[in-house]
Amino acid sequence: MNELFTEIDDIFHSKSVAIYGVSRKGGLGNILLQGLIDQGFPNLFIINPKIEKSEVEIMGTPVFPNLESIGKPVDLAICSTHPKYVKNIVIECGQYGLKAVVIFSAGFGEKGEEGKKAEKELLELAQKYQMRLIGPNCMGLYCPKTGLSFFPALPTEEGPLGFISQSGSIANILGFACILKGINFSKAISYGNAIDLGFNDFLEYLGDDPDTKLIASYMEGVDDGRRFIKLMKKIEKPIIIWKAGVTSAGAEAAHSHTGALSGNNKLWNIVFDQYGVIRVYHLEEMMSMIQAFINPIPVNGRRVAIISGPGGPAVSSADACEMNNLKLADLTDESKEKLQKYIPEFGSSMSNPIDLSLQSTFDPVLEKNAFEIVAKDPNVDMVLIYLAMLTPRYKTLLKLQEENPKPIVLVSAIDVNMSADSFSKMVKRMFIHIRAKKIPDIINELNQKGISIHPNEHLAAKALSNIYQFYNRSNKSSLNK
Amino acid sequence: MNELFTEIDDIFHSKSVAIYGVSRKGGLGNILLQGLIDQGFPNLFIINPKIEKSEVEIMGTPVFPNLESIGKPVDLAICSTHPKYVKNIVIECGQYGLKAVVIFSAGFGEKGEEGKKAEKELLELAQKYQMRLIGPNCMGLYCPKTGLSFFPALPTEEGPLGFISQSGSIANILGFACILKGINFSKAISYGNAIDLGFNDFLEYLGDDPDTKLIASYMEGVDDGRRFIKLMKKIEKPIIIWKAGVTSAGAEAAHSHTGALSGNNKLWNIVFDQYGVIRVYHLEEMMSMIQAFINPIPVNGRRVAIISGPGGPAVSSADACEMNNLKLADLTDESKEKLQKYIPEFGSSMSNPIDLSLQSTFDPVLEKNAFEIVAKDPNVDMVLIYLAMLTPRYKTLLKLQEENPKPIVLVSAIDVNMSADSFSKMVKRMFIHIRAKKIPDIINELNQKGISIHPNEHLAAKALSNIYQFYNRSNKSSLNK
Repeated sequence: MNELFTEIDDIFHSKSVAIYGVSRKGGLGNILLQGLIDQGFPNLFIINPKIEKSEVEIMGTPVFPNLESIGKPVDLAICSTHPKYVKNIVIECGQYGLKAVVIFSAGFGEKGEEGKKAEKELLELAQKYQMRLIGPNCMGLYCPKTGLSFFPALPTEEGPLGFISQSGSIANILGFACILKGINFSKAISYGNAIDLGFNDFLEYLGDDPDTKLIASYMEGVDDGRRFIKLMKKIEKPIIIWKAGVTSAGAEAAHSHTGALSGNNKLWNIVFDQYGVIRVYHLEEMMSMIQAFINPIPVNGRRVAIISGPGGPAVSSADACEMNNLKLADLTDESKEKLQKYIPEFGSSMSNPIDLSLQSTFDPVLEKNAFEIVAKDPNVDMVLIYLAMLTPRYKTLLKLQEENPKPIVLVSAIDVNMSADSFSKMVKRMFIHIRAKKIPDIINELNQKGISIHPNEHLAAKALSNIYQFYNRSNKSSLNK
Repeated sequence: MNELFTEIDDIFHSKSVAIYGVSRKGGLGNILLQGLIDQGFPNLFIINPKIEKSEVEIMGTPVFPNLESIGKPVDLAICSTHPKYVKNIVIECGQYGLKAVVIFSAGFGEKGEEGKKAEKELLELAQKYQMRLIGPNCMGLYCPKTGLSFFPALPTEEGPLGFISQSGSIANILGFACILKGINFSKAISYGNAIDLGFNDFLEYLGDDPDTKLIASYMEGVDDGRRFIKLMKKIEKPIIIWKAGVTSAGAEAAHSHTGALSGNNKLWNIVFDQYGVIRVYHLEEMMSMIQAFINPIPVNGRRVAIISGPGGPAVSSADACEMNNLKLADLTDESKEKLQKYIPEFGSSMSNPIDLSLQSTFDPVLEKNAFEIVAKDPNVDMVLIYLAMLTPRYKTLLKLQEENPKPIVLVSAIDVNMSADSFSKMVKRMFIHIRAKKIPDIINELNQKGISIHPNEHLAAKALSNIYQFYNRSNKSSLNK
């Protein structure tokens, strides 16, 4: 591991944090503090020179007029004050020997020339004190392993996902979206204007971080394109990127959002394709692809079997597969013969896409047998299953993946997270349903076995196509051993 | 109204129904019967010649060996037997003077030449008795106003949506998806192989039906293209079509599913564009567009204002608007000045896309004021609002639409239907949340006011683009008065 890795890893392993910008009347600083409290972070100090001596704590956290008065070492500072105070805070932190400062405060480079000058000054100060800066205009760091957090109520459980975001709020929103899918994080970083540590630094770090199994990112542009390309080439973990600022309207918005230069969109696509980066266009698609790459099953063919109870979605799923450059598998005669035994004679189809007919809704054995026959067919590389909604029958699939792992995507046409809880008693009577509370754990269990669940057949097919492309890109030689 | 309208309307207003294929051991016929029972349909009779006299009822419904023995008039029969019995049932129904038979039974034209011959015979018999047929290989009719239903647990409330489906199961699935969005139906029809009444007949009927305000459809192909084009031209209600069988794989699947010839996809797009038909590619997109067209606000410009708390999604929403042929509105100087008073100085943006910054999450007044200023701006034709999740603040929007109606789309990044019910206590403490049970009624309230809610910014922008195109297509002169 290089020096940069050690530096960033040390910041993530901070043992004490000082926070600037927490006040009695509340505000964003208090929100940040609540995030750390929710994680049970042990050594927290509030720095507020305006607070009178008599007031010893806010939100159960001790208040000090300055770092000096803490009298103990502090590793990291989080700064959420008005931008005019930031410079002196950076100086104080540098003098007290902190490793890094997260500058949550906005009002710098994204506001124009004067802000850019202030940023340059901050960077020079940090370099002088050999201290690293994250931000300004960012949320900072989340690391459930060590208790760092940038927002309240984020999970305390560790997971495989590393996330890097140029936008602060997407980091929070993704955090909450992941709670609903049972996905946990190794680390998440919102780096904002990136005057010191930026996208490439954190990408390199997560690439080497043993706790991170896949990397997802929201970004509007990168500063050092060459280094970015080198990293994409080097990192063998799946990298999912939501690159915004695609159109001229979006690029202009990106510029005023983070000052990013978004660059030519076609060029981005060429680069992403070349290095097997998985590109997404919105949060919903990102949630689909994260699930698909939690534990993807290696595959070297693109022949898909489609299984559907409803016949219409079977047709639409065939469309989605072809649109995503996949092929419909020709089942072996043996599989077809076996299927014939179980699938109803009428209202069904034995050839791919396999239509189990309405009867599958009420006949778990039919579904189980069909899953088994199709998934074990040697002509089938991957499987797309269209479900009306997730039922306890998912257990068949978990078992199948142990004997015979293949990439499997599920389409849950009626949203899986609402589950039957919101339905009337009448509906609950009809279906074997799963309680909403259990859904995140079930999705997690499925993801761990290489099964992902999607809101429509187009995202499901895209997930399969991305898995195929990831394992069959030519320029990462070690992957095709 | 023409003769066809009256005939179909009479079928929907059937006062008594006989059902074939219900048995003591259960099966799909019993499922269909349960659907009618759940609607409280008053005059139900089971016909089963095999049942011994001693057994007077199944599922609380009287059993008769034949229609004759009922001794009362019967309007409609539903036939869910093995296909080999269907011919004699059609003869019996014809002789007893029924208006129509829904043939749920599959195993006809979709199975090959012999099945097609059998279909021809059925049609000739029906014509002989001046009786109409729906199906075979279909679910039939759902009409909460009169109590007809093709599946258990469908809502008993009436609504504005008319739905026509070539696939039976999509009709059921859409029914359940609509429960979660508070959308109710005027009528839904699954017409299957359409040997007699088919897509065009029901499209024409729903076009004239005063209870139907918008029409949605799943289809794989039409028989009479000219009539279809005439109907698209004539019908002024919004028509949303999910046309599957787009690719060669899909077209082949469609042919084995319903025997449909899917035709050239480019041609379909040209025709749909010309007549302002809203084309969708999956159920999720269909749910987006149905919501947008429940009560769309007429508009003649395509200038969109984007409001977002999170800055990243603001950029991505700008991309989505441009990709969907919309323009970003230039706010008036007056609006910008007003916004300046409320929007935080830092981490925000006053120019479109308007970034309210993280503070909006905790400051309802900021959000309310921004909504008002932006929606009332004369340079703004339509509004896209990106929310982390739906909160009680939606009420501001309802009020705004009364004073100043404009098409508004909301993106709920964290799924609206899961709501805070599935979240931990920690998360519930953080946010003003809405209980999952209340969500369908709230969506309904929003839809009624021309506000729709979408799972991502691309569907939201597409909804706005579709509304603009619907009101600005040139070939329906009466719309542009």
